[in-house]
Amino acid sequence: MQDKQISLAHGNGGRFMRELIEEIFARHLANPELDVHADAVALPLERDGDLLFTTDGFTVQPLEFPGGNIGSLAVHGTCNDLAVAGALPRYLSLNAFIEEGFEIEQLERIVRSIAAAANAIDVRIAAGDTKVVRRGEGGGIYLATTGVGLRPAGVRPALDRIQAGDRVLVSGPVGDHGIAVMLAREQFGLHGDLRSDAGSVLRLTQSLLDLPGLHFMRDPTRGGLATVAHEICRATGLQVRLNDSAIPVRDQVRSVCEILGYDPHYLACEGRVVAIVSPDQAETALERWRGFDEGCDAALIGTLLAEDAHVILQTELGGARILEELEDDPLPRIC
Amino acid sequence: MQDKQISLAHGNGGRFMRELIEEIFARHLANPELDVHADAVALPLERDGDLLFTTDGFTVQPLEFPGGNIGSLAVHGTCNDLAVAGALPRYLSLNAFIEEGFEIEQLERIVRSIAAAANAIDVRIAAGDTKVVRRGEGGGIYLATTGVGLRPAGVRPALDRIQAGDRVLVSGPVGDHGIAVMLAREQFGLHGDLRSDAGSVLRLTQSLLDLPGLHFMRDPTRGGLATVAHEICRATGLQVRLNDSAIPVRDQVRSVCEILGYDPHYLACEGRVVAIVSPDQAETALERWRGFDEGCDAALIGTLLAEDAHVILQTELGGARILEELEDDPLPRIC
Repeated sequence: MQDKQISLAHGNGGRFMRELIEEIFARHLANPELDVHADAVALPLERDGDLLFTTDGFTVQPLEFPGGNIGSLAVHGTCNDLAVAGALPRYLSLNAFIEEGFEIEQLERIVRSIAAAANAIDVRIAAGDTKVVRRGEGGGIYLATTGVGLRPAGVRPALDRIQAGDRVLVSGPVGDHGIAVMLAREQFGLHGDLRSDAGSVLRLTQSLLDLPGLHFMRDPTRGGLATVAHEICRATGLQVRLNDSAIPVRDQVRSVCEILGYDPHYLACEGRVVAIVSPDQAETALERWRGFDEGCDAALIGTLLAEDAHVILQTELGGARILEELEDDPLPRIC
Repeated sequence: MQDKQISLAHGNGGRFMRELIEEIFARHLANPELDVHADAVALPLERDGDLLFTTDGFTVQPLEFPGGNIGSLAVHGTCNDLAVAGALPRYLSLNAFIEEGFEIEQLERIVRSIAAAANAIDVRIAAGDTKVVRRGEGGGIYLATTGVGLRPAGVRPALDRIQAGDRVLVSGPVGDHGIAVMLAREQFGLHGDLRSDAGSVLRLTQSLLDLPGLHFMRDPTRGGLATVAHEICRATGLQVRLNDSAIPVRDQVRSVCEILGYDPHYLACEGRVVAIVSPDQAETALERWRGFDEGCDAALIGTLLAEDAHVILQTELGGARILEELEDDPLPRIC
């Protein structure tokens, strides 16, 4: 390919589009399932267990940030949704909406990150499509990924399995992704070397699947930990009581939040898991997570109570406040 | 929902987004598999045959046109890709990238069309995601759909099964979609009542699956009939010889093409199939197609020849010209 920028002709179904697909997408994402000349491909898949399905769109700004870019995020985000549902991610589809004028060099970096993130967890990009939109009608590039995974028979972490008395675990510090992306925008004159936590949670989720006391898992992305707590509260009618001092938050995240008036509990993570586990197995789960690099700061942060259905943050001094449902967006375009 | 327009808060993971999803998307798309509170859903699926997978993005402008809108197109486009591969479409994921300020009334019309198109062919929307992008960074709404289908064991229409002597069939007039969308733009002072052919090809494709002579099918979308012919030519090394006078083109399409200098062979269809069938079964295939409303104008339009690998258009007067691969886009943003 000789062009340096995407033009509308790269989206028209003809030769330029074929070259773009072959030389950028197919070259980096090559695998036995990806046939860029097929209308649809067959997915080789074992026939025991449940077939799981999920999708996510990505519009993060800036497109590249410390710890990742929109490409790695698009792989991790969708695969993590399969992972927290108890599945092993196997195949992804990839849609790209590319703005006219987008630099092909940057596109290639993003596609290379997609390939690396997928390879690291043995997931195949099995279908893809690109569309080119006019200058001024896109944000550089938007991605959508849809994932197919396999969940072993008998595994079913689900909201309806949560019980009063269950413990709330988180696999690491919250808010790193939100603040890392925010700092990368250099909007408020703030700078820092904080890296996003964007990454795969697959090892963490797989490590708990054999625990009968594992009742539910979710990755706290948009809306953060508080939003996951609200989903649990609303679905179960139980009170989610979180212990403020137990919730891991990095100093740099805390500082930025204090300066800008953000609450870290609402900030997006992209590589963390919240797990709801029966009280007798909470310690076991925590130990397993702490055995991984990506889970070394895992913590027990709360309990489900058969009391008023609120999300309550208990502070160190014995006080307590209600964490309201998120309404206003502290940081748009974070994923 | 009280809002009339999409705001950034509809994309932030909080209450507004939950309301948008519940009151617009979930309400119209409700089905047993769609759980808007789940990270990933299990797809009930028989365990014989091949699992087929495909994806497509949609950026058509205008979003609504005679015969369809971006929503119905997003269902038909992806399901048709499964259909021409010989599969029965079963599940879709749906991604929406919505621009801040988009009218919720129009969104609802689009989502209603998605539901109608999916219901008509018994396909379920099993996963979805919405992202809201800033005003000026989108085109109203972009959609991406990923489809999962089941193909019966033994069915495998594929480029590598095409042989010299095979016949080329098309299920109806070409270019309706391209010209209908173009007219809906009212760009060139041209008006007309032409409807897009956008629709499902599932009955057409299913009707041929038991024919051993069915070698390949494709829907001629972006790049049109000529682009499908080029894909076949490139993949097989055979000459695709098309008979100009046999290719069905509506008078209105032909007139507009003459005025604007377009070639109807490169214009997008969204509800047609090209099939490559062995010579002894071409008439049978044609008769079956003609038994459907959507196939009543089906025609035998060409032959595969073991000669120079070109796409040749043979004219009524005995002349012949090479149909070159599409380079410049006659009509961008057609799907």
